[in-house]
Amino acid sequence: MLKKQDGKVYDLKAAKELYKEYLERAKIKKDIILPPNTVKIDDLNRKETLNRLYKLVDDVLEKIYKSGRPSVELPSRSATNIIWDEENDLILLGKQIMEKQFHTLTSVADITRLMRVLEVVNELLNEDIHATKREVFYSDVNLFQEQKNSDKSIEDVASMLHTTRNSTHVVAAPKGTCVGRLRIRDRSDIIDLEGLGSGGWTISPMLDNIDIIESDAEFILVIEKDAAMMRLAEARFWRKYPCILLTAQGVGNVAVRMFLKRLSKELDLPVFSLVDSDPYGHYIHSVYLRGSKRLSYESPFLATPNIKLLGVLTRDLDEYKIPQEVRIKMNKRDEKRTKDLLNEDFVKKNKAWEIDLKLALKLKIKAEIQAFASHGFKFLTDRYLPEKLTTGDWI
Amino acid sequence: MLKKQDGKVYDLKAAKELYKEYLERAKIKKDIILPPNTVKIDDLNRKETLNRLYKLVDDVLEKIYKSGRPSVELPSRSATNIIWDEENDLILLGKQIMEKQFHTLTSVADITRLMRVLEVVNELLNEDIHATKREVFYSDVNLFQEQKNSDKSIEDVASMLHTTRNSTHVVAAPKGTCVGRLRIRDRSDIIDLEGLGSGGWTISPMLDNIDIIESDAEFILVIEKDAAMMRLAEARFWRKYPCILLTAQGVGNVAVRMFLKRLSKELDLPVFSLVDSDPYGHYIHSVYLRGSKRLSYESPFLATPNIKLLGVLTRDLDEYKIPQEVRIKMNKRDEKRTKDLLNEDFVKKNKAWEIDLKLALKLKIKAEIQAFASHGFKFLTDRYLPEKLTTGDWI
Repeated sequence: MLKKQDGKVYDLKAAKELYKEYLERAKIKKDIILPPNTVKIDDLNRKETLNRLYKLVDDVLEKIYKSGRPSVELPSRSATNIIWDEENDLILLGKQIMEKQFHTLTSVADITRLMRVLEVVNELLNEDIHATKREVFYSDVNLFQEQKNSDKSIEDVASMLHTTRNSTHVVAAPKGTCVGRLRIRDRSDIIDLEGLGSGGWTISPMLDNIDIIESDAEFILVIEKDAAMMRLAEARFWRKYPCILLTAQGVGNVAVRMFLKRLSKELDLPVFSLVDSDPYGHYIHSVYLRGSKRLSYESPFLATPNIKLLGVLTRDLDEYKIPQEVRIKMNKRDEKRTKDLLNEDFVKKNKAWEIDLKLALKLKIKAEIQAFASHGFKFLTDRYLPEKLTTGDWI
Repeated sequence: MLKKQDGKVYDLKAAKELYKEYLERAKIKKDIILPPNTVKIDDLNRKETLNRLYKLVDDVLEKIYKSGRPSVELPSRSATNIIWDEENDLILLGKQIMEKQFHTLTSVADITRLMRVLEVVNELLNEDIHATKREVFYSDVNLFQEQKNSDKSIEDVASMLHTTRNSTHVVAAPKGTCVGRLRIRDRSDIIDLEGLGSGGWTISPMLDNIDIIESDAEFILVIEKDAAMMRLAEARFWRKYPCILLTAQGVGNVAVRMFLKRLSKELDLPVFSLVDSDPYGHYIHSVYLRGSKRLSYESPFLATPNIKLLGVLTRDLDEYKIPQEVRIKMNKRDEKRTKDLLNEDFVKKNKAWEIDLKLALKLKIKAEIQAFASHGFKFLTDRYLPEKLTTGDWI
């Protein structure tokens, strides 16, 4: 009953054209230019971060000597200071500044925690090691009390230094796999991601140790689910179609998003996403697209504004004759989430996306990537993906 | 404030002695001998599984011709047929047989689903591809109605064929990472797990394609959490101490447990686990140790009865001066889980384990692996683990 696919090799015409376009554009345009009312941040190496840190501490000390009471200035991360940059399609942090002073007992605790995190970051950078947010919390539980306090201070420190959290060596736990036509260096190890069988490379969150060496891929495909990744890895999809595959098991964490961004930027590759046809899947796509509000200030290093939503689109369900019985009825929460997405600026300005979400809301249905298995286990790799990349039917 | 470790290199005396013991034992003892009242199952290759499948279908057909009505026999997986084999410290399936006949509408649906899964497995094996349980469900939603029905049929089919689920090419989604002194082959790819930087190899669930080539490791360390794995990977722990590291992000799924079992058996290596000092962590250890009740019939291929609980033990908290403020108070659920563990046969026969769990219950405390960060980020890799492996302070 498994329907055999015809073994056809598609030419991926539309994807190839996009790839050529990117190569052309890469010759002209360089970095993203941020609007003037936003904060510029840099992805720094260890030495540069240390220098900024010393400068910052010097400033604080000077202020204490001058005024007799310490205060710290840092970019405000409140909602009113979060800006959507339409030009670059990014969420960014505005120039509002917040001053922390030793007013109250709370503010004293707050500023002490900040100083403690600066100390930890100093040690991490000096020893050239990395820690997770949880470990930073555990390094001084008495002071931090709760992890949300140390987390806040960690983000404060990164934004005060105008750098990425990764540059402070406070990193996410590993989550996500990459495989395909790519060669990287992790310190002294050269890793060929085409030679890892049906497994893959667990993406290291210590991205400052990673260099992207080379790739003959023509696109990157981000996959929501491990199981779909397995399907593509088993088919060695990248051999037939030159690509890099990446999954983060749900919403991409900071490390995966930063790694994806670097791949797409350094290699000038178009990026496509394959998610479930439901509001959560589309949300996952949106996080890769534009970053999250919480980490708005480092959006330029985390967001991939050019990422295309390849599928699964609501319209694909009819287009690829997905049987009624594998479509799932939306619940109230799905409907609310879809409506929320429809209210987002980035959806409003993308007509095709709006239409697809409205269609989902009208039909009240959703479907998983695995629903394609109703046409045979190889349908996804042998027909759906190549056809979409050939016709350019993405959002 | 980060406390510098002394950079001491431990000799891992106790672990090394255990390793030598394993090497000696490997010369004598071969496979596990199952008690006579249990079902013997084999991990088969593709061809062998196909042959059994043909034989099974022939038998069913013959029965139909002879009696005029089809019936199928399969090992019962009910609670009364699940046996704890004290000798091998494994959960196993007894010899009770269940006969499925075409009595009622339910049994017709049941047997039809069974036949459909046999058909799917036949296709998977013939095409030499793998599928997840979810995909099998989606291959015929009308028939299966709910995934629990196809899941049940998948397990029925594996037990009817007296083989592992992996042999039927219905596999788990990838989950887990391995790194360290190990070289494997995945089809034509040779993968050196020492050369993957601070990332690692995402364990492929298609284990029938994997050969273990060689290793100069002297032990395997199974780690509950990604974040702890990252700490060890960053330190390149295996360079200083010859080992293989493995994590499954929580409870090990079938693929990770089977891979661990193969590593330990084929390489004759002792296995240690590093989990949180809480009942859930100890439960994770127990699943590696003896398999789960649901998959009892394939325990010999999933369980690692020799695995030692290296830590974090309750007594370690005092031993390693873990500050009071990073110890967490047990909640009601923790207490219940600890009591449940204390009622298990495998705990009762392990005095040291019983004592440690009773101590936890008395003090009503638990702690995470990351709590060691209170002694500095390198404490785990530079002192705790090497010291435990040197003194042999495990359960």
